[in-house]
Order: sequence, then C-alpha cells, then structure tokens
Amino acid sequence: MNAEIIAVGTELLMGQIVNTNARYLSRQFADMGVNVYYQTVVGDNAGRIGEALKIAAGRADLVVCTGGLGPTMDDITKDVLADLIGEPLVMHEPTLERISAFFRERGIAMTENNKRQATMIRGGDALMNDTGLAVGVAITKGKVHYVLLPGPPSELKPMFETYAKPWILGKMPDASALHSRMLKFAGIGESALEEALHDLIERQTDPTIAPYAREGEVTLRLTTRASDPEEAKARLDALEEQIKEKVGSYLYADEDIALEEALVRLMSAKGLTLSLAESCTGGLFSELITSVPGSSAMFAGAEISYSNEWKRRELAVPAELLEGEGAPGAVSAETAAAMAEGLRRTGTDYAVAITGVAGPAHSERKPVGLVYVALASKTGKTEAEQLHLRGNRALIRMRAVKRAMYLLWRRIKAEHPD
Amino acid sequence: MNAEIIAVGTELLMGQIVNTNARYLSRQFADMGVNVYYQTVVGDNAGRIGEALKIAAGRADLVVCTGGLGPTMDDITKDVLADLIGEPLVMHEPTLERISAFFRERGIAMTENNKRQATMIRGGDALMNDTGLAVGVAITKGKVHYVLLPGPPSELKPMFETYAKPWILGKMPDASALHSRMLKFAGIGESALEEALHDLIERQTDPTIAPYAREGEVTLRLTTRASDPEEAKARLDALEEQIKEKVGSYLYADEDIALEEALVRLMSAKGLTLSLAESCTGGLFSELITSVPGSSAMFAGAEISYSNEWKRRELAVPAELLEGEGAPGAVSAETAAAMAEGLRRTGTDYAVAITGVAGPAHSERKPVGLVYVALASKTGKTEAEQLHLRGNRALIRMRAVKRAMYLLWRRIKAEHPD
Repeated sequence: MNAEIIAVGTELLMGQIVNTNARYLSRQFADMGVNVYYQTVVGDNAGRIGEALKIAAGRADLVVCTGGLGPTMDDITKDVLADLIGEPLVMHEPTLERISAFFRERGIAMTENNKRQATMIRGGDALMNDTGLAVGVAITKGKVHYVLLPGPPSELKPMFETYAKPWILGKMPDASALHSRMLKFAGIGESALEEALHDLIERQTDPTIAPYAREGEVTLRLTTRASDPEEAKARLDALEEQIKEKVGSYLYADEDIALEEALVRLMSAKGLTLSLAESCTGGLFSELITSVPGSSAMFAGAEISYSNEWKRRELAVPAELLEGEGAPGAVSAETAAAMAEGLRRTGTDYAVAITGVAGPAHSERKPVGLVYVALASKTGKTEAEQLHLRGNRALIRMRAVKRAMYLLWRRIKAEHPD
Repeated sequence: MNAEIIAVGTELLMGQIVNTNARYLSRQFADMGVNVYYQTVVGDNAGRIGEALKIAAGRADLVVCTGGLGPTMDDITKDVLADLIGEPLVMHEPTLERISAFFRERGIAMTENNKRQATMIRGGDALMNDTGLAVGVAITKGKVHYVLLPGPPSELKPMFETYAKPWILGKMPDASALHSRMLKFAGIGESALEEALHDLIERQTDPTIAPYAREGEVTLRLTTRASDPEEAKARLDALEEQIKEKVGSYLYADEDIALEEALVRLMSAKGLTLSLAESCTGGLFSELITSVPGSSAMFAGAEISYSNEWKRRELAVPAELLEGEGAPGAVSAETAAAMAEGLRRTGTDYAVAITGVAGPAHSERKPVGLVYVALASKTGKTEAEQLHLRGNRALIRMRAVKRAMYLLWRRIKAEHPD
C-alpha cells in the first residue's frame, strides 16, 4: 500500500508552524509498512484542496488529510472530499450529542458553526475524537481509501492510534506480518556504527536494518515480516545478538527512548542519585533529565556555575585554577574535575561536571568546541575527558551533554553491573 | 507571484526529520510578498521528482526545490530538472575549483561523485554555497522560475538570503514596495492581544496586522506597501504608536527576537546581573538564557534545587517551610520567596525562583500546573506570584519560564527606566 499525506492549513504555507503532523504520520506508516511517496501542504481554499485530493487519488492507494475539520468557515476538508466523491454530508448523531453536552456543561450557547464538527460523509466510518470535538472520517471510494484527521496534534495522535490505524490495517491484510524493534546507541556516531555493522547491513535482507541519527543518539530499526509473532521475535533476537557482539557497549536501550530517559530508569532502578555542575551547557543536562517524569527520585539538583565566581563560591574550585598566569583556566580538565569534586558535599552517588567553549566567543588557547567532562562517584575516582566538538553553539552544547550522559551511563554499568 | 516549495528527500517521507526548510522558506516568502500555495515532499526518485516538478510548473510562477544537490547517486534534483526543461548539465568551474581545493587542503582524494556537486544547468545562474560544497541553480524557462537549493539548513539559509532572495526579487519588480515590522509581546495571550486590538485589526487594510503565537510569546507582523521607504516607516511608526497605546506594557521588542534575548540585551545594556533558583523547571530558564551568545555578561549562575535537601542546603530554605504538618511545602509562595532570598549571597542585582508542579505526579492539595514565581532585587522587596498553567509537563515548564522572564523584564523596566 502507498500513501499520500495532505496537510491542510494556510498557517503552514505562511511558515507560522512546522508540519510535525506529516512527520508523525510518516513514522507511523514506516512502522506499518505503508510507503509514503508524497506529502503535500495546501491552504484553506476549496479549489486547491480539491486539486490536491484529485492528484493524490491518482497516485496513492491511501490519502490521509490533516486539518480543516474545525468549526470555522475556513474548515472545509470534509465538504471538499464529499463533493469530490459525490456523497452528501450527514450528521453523526453521537458526536452532535457530545458537542451539545460540552457546551451545555459549560453554560455556553452552541453556535450553528459548531454543528459542522459533527458532520460525516455518507457511507464512511466515523473516527471518534476522544480529546476534541470534531469527528474524523474514513471512507473508501473506488480503489482509494481516504482518512480525514483533525489538525491539532493532541487530537490527531489519539484518533490515529485508536481509530484510524486499525481501520487502515484492516484494508491491508498483510500488515500484521510486519514486526519492528528499535535499538538505541550513544557514544558512537552514525557513520562509525554503520561501518562497524557494514557487513551485517549489506548482507541482511530479512530482518532489514535501517539506521538513522539525531544529536548524540543513533537508532537502528530492525524489521521483519512473519505471520507468527514468535518467529519474528526469534529472528529479531538473533540479529540483535549479532549486533551486540560488534557494538554492544554502545547499546543503551532496545526501545525508542532518549538517552536521558534510559539514564533516569537505570539510576532509579539501582537506587542511585545524581548531582550536576554545568558551565557552558548552561542547564541543558539538568533540563533534559528533569523533562523525564519520575526524575525526582534520582536527581538531587545542579549548580549552573556560569561565572568563575559561582565556580569558586558554590563549588569551591580553587581560585588559582581559574585565574592568573599559567593557570589552567575555567575550561580545563583540572577545573572540570574540581567542579565534580565540589559536588561531593551533596552526598549523591554520582556527580558530573561540564565546562567548555560553546562559542561564538573564544580565545586562541581555547577554541570553540573544546569541552571537558568530569565524572565523580562516591566510591571511585574522579576522571575528566577532553572533547573537541563541532557545530554551532546549540549543537556543541547538545553534543557535550549527550557525551556526558553516555560516560555516566557507561560508568554506572561498570560500577553497578546487573 | 505565487510559489511552490518542493522538498526532496526520502528521510522526510520516512518521518526521520521534520520539514523545517519548508517552514523557513514559507516565512521568507511571506515577508517578500510571495504567495505560497503548495508545499510538496517527494523522495529521491527521478520519476516522482519529475512528476512533482511538472505539476508545480503548471500551477506556480516560482518553483523552489530543496535537497538532492549532494554527491551521492541519490542526489538527482539537478539532473531531473535539466531533463525536464531540455537543457544539459554543464560544469561550474569556480565551484569545481573550490571543491578540488577543499579536498587538496585536507589531503583527501576527490572522487568523481564529488564533481557532481559542481554541475549547473546551462543558461542558469549559479547560487554560491558559502557554507558547503554543492552549488545552487536559478533558471527561468518559459514563464516559470526555478530555484534549486541544498537540503542542509546550514547551507540553505545563507544561500537563500545572500543569492536566491535577490535573484527572486529581481524577477518581481513590485517586491521592493513591501515593508514589514515585527512586534513581540509577552505576558499576554494571543486571544487577549487580538481582543485588545480587535478594532485596529478589523479596520486596518494598510498596514495589515497579522498575529501569531508560540509558547509564552505573541508576534504581530505589520506590513505595508510603499515605493518610498520613508513613507513606509512613517506608516509603520504611526500604527506601532496606536498599538502601544493599547498594549504597550506587553511589548518587549520591535524585532523578531525571543524573550530571553530581549532580557539578555536589556540587562547587559544596564549592567545588571541575574541569578536563578529553579525547581520544577529543572534548568530550562538557565538553558534558554545561556543559549543567547553574550549572556555570560549578565548571568552569574543558577541553583537547580530539584530536591528539598538542595533547597535547604544551597538556598537556606527553612526546613519548617518545606516539611511537617501545616507547612506550606516546597510548592508555595513562601518557599519560592525563600529560594529567591537564598540567592542574595550571590550578590546579583536580580534573583528569580520558580517552584511548582509540572506533572504528571501531583497531590490533591497541589494540582498539576500550580507554579510560584518569586522575584527579588538588590534594592526592592521580594514578591511571589501564583500561576495556574495548562498543558503537559513540557508546556507547563515552558509557560512558567516565559512568565518568569516577563515578570523580570517588567520589574527591570520599572526599577531601571530608560
């Protein structure tokens, strides 16, 4: 099955928002074994929406629209599709009742416009909206399947996963035979990982291995086709073992989670605690760790020691390390180690310190991208690593944090084996 | 002039990356007065790229492609367009020399593939690539203008702004008559701002007023058409004055900068310094402030006091505030104020503290979204504000930080008038 995704909304064409719905749906389809050949964006204009639908119906088996299901006169996706396939709009009574109740409970008068959100196309299946008001539509006409979804991601995602995905899978009898597993790596770049697995990637036809990268993390997606889930699991297990033999020391999860989430889980499970001292990364490590729900069990806190004075006063970094002729300076292995040591009073099991030059300002002795990461544990010694990172300010900060996370993860694995 | 943006790349159709190039170009075109009617995404497939180009040429005056200019066999955008318009590929010698020098300097052998990045379409204009290797192409065939840009944003943006934009403006004689100004607001929601300016927005036809929002910030874009830049400036000034009369207290910049950047500039200009204490926001405030180059002049550091113990030890928050029956608890105005007071020893001019419930964990007394922001200044008293924020964990954290930034910005404006 091949699909086209059409996003409807003038705000996309004005560049006010980025088309994250297309990305979300594309990933879903990749998992389902549906090929996406085109994504299209079109404004809230009946003629151009109709044109885009016609072109899509001529080249795809499945046309998925997002947006244009709301109550305003701009929201016309259902009307245009109904017109195109020659079916009338009809009222979806359960949704109309839900919308009426919504306004009744809030003591607000329901306008005529709001009823538009309860319309369906005759002969179609309603896709319930558990997190909003507008009902979605799935309908087959001729050889083409159409699915209309709401634009807000908070409505689109639950509707897709709960209602649209099963409907689409029902139209592709082979779909249940596709099984995937995600392996997540850190501490190794995408090209180094590909090189290490080159033979395996070249040789593999089933399961297939597809790598992709984002900052500081690399993902391998293993995919196999099998009617028996046990058979699929056995194949994926066997391939995972082969991969582990080559690059197992970089594998931090066998599901699609970020490195910070793996770290929070690992430390929570082992009852370990963490404190941080961040200079050039300015709180990014803390921010990522605390974005994981449940991180309060393992994260005590951080010193964001942006100034030298803060490093001295809050982390007891000796002044002679920081300033004066011949001093190593704020960006040095010695200062990084002293910052980590300065966290000992917090009593946490692990302490990580980062200091470096994120740019654009820099000196001749300390180029942009020079970063030191120091790691101290309650029981072990303090170690510092020098990094030379590339990219702009934001990339250098992110790469420094992900590298520090990986070093911490590796050290915990060594000091607290399962 | 109306445009279609075609992004070429299978990684977009697989959902591996999000199409930020389309957003960037759409915003540029909105500023230039070019209407974007369609955005299309297509994979690295000659047949489908050709199909997409043909459809675009039939409905747009300007077709802009991103991606597919690199050295690999997948990079075929130039080949497909050359074929479509019946012109041969020719070598762009200055680029070929640049690429040869690039490899020579690095002592790496240049492969034949790399020469592909120096090819042009005969009769076209070369768009220089100051941050990468592949040359871009701008060419007019019949009534349609084509522009081919590289995929990596770090190459696309400089090439567009320096070379492609002037080329396109040269094809639209009226373009120089369009003048825009961005006004940025914080501390007020998009709908409240629109309501306050309702009459103005309805009445205005030239300059036009277009609002849009992202978390914690609202932008108004004022746009006018005038052949005389002085005349345009006078009109925009007059409208800005009218807007200021109504909502001036929320206006933090008359250019498109983030609130944290306005804050760094304001405090640096006035020689003021800042320290932070963050609990539920986990370092997000610090991270945003330090993402602004030059923030080291005004930012001393932060205590990320995620645990109660950290609040007691590092910020001297009294234990009786935090625990025990009848204590206000970690999430309270009293604790927020004590956290800000605890930063006094840092000697900074201003101190901001944030504590709250970002979710999903919460208690009956302290619901998700309850956040306190406290503000202390060297000369003034400490004040705490209670917030009730909506959204998921990430949204609540961002909204809390942006609100705290706005309160700080307002207080500095009051205590240090220009």
